[in-house]
Amino acid sequence: MEKTNAREDEKEEVEEQVVNPWEVSAKGDGKIDYDKLIDKFGCQRIDQALIDRVHRLTSRPPHVFLRRGVFFAHRDFNEILDAYERGEKFYLYTGRGPSSEALHLGHLVPFMFTKYLQDAFKVPLVIQLTDDEKCMWKNLSVEECQRLARENAKDIIACGFDVTKTFIFSDFDYVGGAFYKNMVRVAKCVTYNKVVGIFGFTAEDHIGKISFPPVQAVPSFPNSFPHLFSGKDDLRCLIPCAIDQDPYFRMTRDVAPRIGYHKPALIESLFFPALQGETGKMSASDPNSAIYVTDSGKDIKNKINKYAFSGGRDSIELHRQLGANLEVDIPIKYLSFFLEDDAELQHIKEEYGAGRLLTGEVKKRLIEVLTELVERHRRARAAVTDEMVDAFMAVRPLPNMFN
Amino acid sequence: MEKTNAREDEKEEVEEQVVNPWEVSAKGDGKIDYDKLIDKFGCQRIDQALIDRVHRLTSRPPHVFLRRGVFFAHRDFNEILDAYERGEKFYLYTGRGPSSEALHLGHLVPFMFTKYLQDAFKVPLVIQLTDDEKCMWKNLSVEECQRLARENAKDIIACGFDVTKTFIFSDFDYVGGAFYKNMVRVAKCVTYNKVVGIFGFTAEDHIGKISFPPVQAVPSFPNSFPHLFSGKDDLRCLIPCAIDQDPYFRMTRDVAPRIGYHKPALIESLFFPALQGETGKMSASDPNSAIYVTDSGKDIKNKINKYAFSGGRDSIELHRQLGANLEVDIPIKYLSFFLEDDAELQHIKEEYGAGRLLTGEVKKRLIEVLTELVERHRRARAAVTDEMVDAFMAVRPLPNMFN
Repeated sequence: MEKTNAREDEKEEVEEQVVNPWEVSAKGDGKIDYDKLIDKFGCQRIDQALIDRVHRLTSRPPHVFLRRGVFFAHRDFNEILDAYERGEKFYLYTGRGPSSEALHLGHLVPFMFTKYLQDAFKVPLVIQLTDDEKCMWKNLSVEECQRLARENAKDIIACGFDVTKTFIFSDFDYVGGAFYKNMVRVAKCVTYNKVVGIFGFTAEDHIGKISFPPVQAVPSFPNSFPHLFSGKDDLRCLIPCAIDQDPYFRMTRDVAPRIGYHKPALIESLFFPALQGETGKMSASDPNSAIYVTDSGKDIKNKINKYAFSGGRDSIELHRQLGANLEVDIPIKYLSFFLEDDAELQHIKEEYGAGRLLTGEVKKRLIEVLTELVERHRRARAAVTDEMVDAFMAVRPLPNMFN
Repeated sequence: MEKTNAREDEKEEVEEQVVNPWEVSAKGDGKIDYDKLIDKFGCQRIDQALIDRVHRLTSRPPHVFLRRGVFFAHRDFNEILDAYERGEKFYLYTGRGPSSEALHLGHLVPFMFTKYLQDAFKVPLVIQLTDDEKCMWKNLSVEECQRLARENAKDIIACGFDVTKTFIFSDFDYVGGAFYKNMVRVAKCVTYNKVVGIFGFTAEDHIGKISFPPVQAVPSFPNSFPHLFSGKDDLRCLIPCAIDQDPYFRMTRDVAPRIGYHKPALIESLFFPALQGETGKMSASDPNSAIYVTDSGKDIKNKINKYAFSGGRDSIELHRQLGANLEVDIPIKYLSFFLEDDAELQHIKEEYGAGRLLTGEVKKRLIEVLTELVERHRRARAAVTDEMVDAFMAVRPLPNMFN
């Protein structure tokens, strides 16, 4: 369901909510209406039947992010599963724009989920570091963006990806050859008016921005990676990402059949909420809006206690009487992302919602969970050497990528 | 002198003449007014003093194309000569969009002149084959454009370039790495409005076109070729080209200082006229408008006799009385491109202009000259092996490029 009238779309966005790769905002209470987003973008809700199917096909419990609706929307994920069931393989593609040194927890979400998909389906994975994009959108030099790309690669590797199945690449290093040829094939199919409609570019934007969408599009096509997928032109691609990336892949799916390629399938997540409450994505410019993977235990404790928006009531008496408002409570949101134990989460929600648990007690548990997560990430990242980064980023065949 | 108001410029072009890399046309008699073009583009005329300076610095007679005003305009060519006189080196950059199998004589003009510059100044040369551009502008596949690029490379090599000083590259093969980084640096400095002003793109043009100008810009910067110019970031670049390519390099010169690079210098030629008369460039769609390097002696004879526009008079009597109109006579134009002997050319012009020579006699001499030129080119091209193409196109250092 592609947009047919860019101008109408823009108007609608001005009035309600803006979700694109560079801006996530909503009028009113600032809360993103994901149902409206699904309607507007034209993707599908992930329902329980689909989650059950994943469970059955992979013979393991679906990931927390799938069970709890963090990954909530998709495009053609069913077709990927159909193909998988027939014994056909696919590959995963995800990425990151390396604009800052320190990742926050929201940045880890797609990588944690992608690692699960890689393990569960035993499939190869390409991870694009869009250092070129960040150089063009931010006031950063080529060299700084490449440095950040390598730093971010360490955090990504720390999520536990399998080096025998994973190729991480920097656009500045990898664009060229078969990849560039696909960029040209895609670019030929997309007018300036079209990217204005999809991404909201203006005539005063530089042509680097206008040139970029094909760069993010073409990892969706296996022949962009001849060292990996030579002779496997029919391999399907599944893209786990946050839903703000949907515009890129709407464009890609529109173009794919015109140049003889499969449309990539998508599995899309909610935004990870800011500490201050669910008003879209976290702001990189406000360090107190997010927990970073570089935060110390003390930082985490302070930030959660001071900034995590609480659904608890104004007085203990009122809280005991009414219970917490779980809908707006950030500690509960964060726990539902990162507390693995379904029974414990259910118990906390019941007790907190009934007013028998206080905000401080829930926050205490969240601090434990996040401290452990961040500590585990920090240890894993410290173990990532430059040689490991080189190994993941080497342009090389992956002979065991489907084993 | 950059354009400041695209819309005014466009209007002016509609009224008078359009010269850009994809269109050359003029109202009225169809003749391009090169003085107006120089004013509008903001380049300089090449005067006799500059030609004399080239003569002095290179200790050899300036090329026919320089002596006779075929290369008639420049940007900062004086600065290149200043640097050369101080003992500093520079490099040459020219190119071709490989859209057809067979080159015509007009296509050879920049390469013949570039070979002279390479020999006279003993400098390295990069030749860009914009197969990506042709894929985006014409209805041609990636593969077909790459095939044409290799075929055209054979014709270029046949012009006699020195393989120890010359790197020929296809964009589809070579875009990437340092080259791509420079593309991004350039793209960041150019807005969509700017390329609309310079190139006349519209919002219905595909983004491939809008993305392309940086690809043609960055061979102007030595660090786009690390295998050739590593550690020579200060090397200046001189671009011999037809004046329709000026828009690309106006843009490039505008951007260069903003990203810390030298502006490339330019030396620019007239268009090679069509057989039917001087109405701009030849049309690739009309095979009878041009002599191709694949034409047989018989083809050449027929085309010249049948189509070459004559400045001779309607009757022999009138011709003897008034003499030929040399201003519009195509055989004389072609001879002034390709007849090396100044004295003979002068003699022919005098005799023809005085009516003592008839058109048929001048055409006979032209047929001899072109048949020999085309025959020589054909022999040279037949001697170009695939191994030679590979050698010129190999990404390799050129240790003797300044000797």
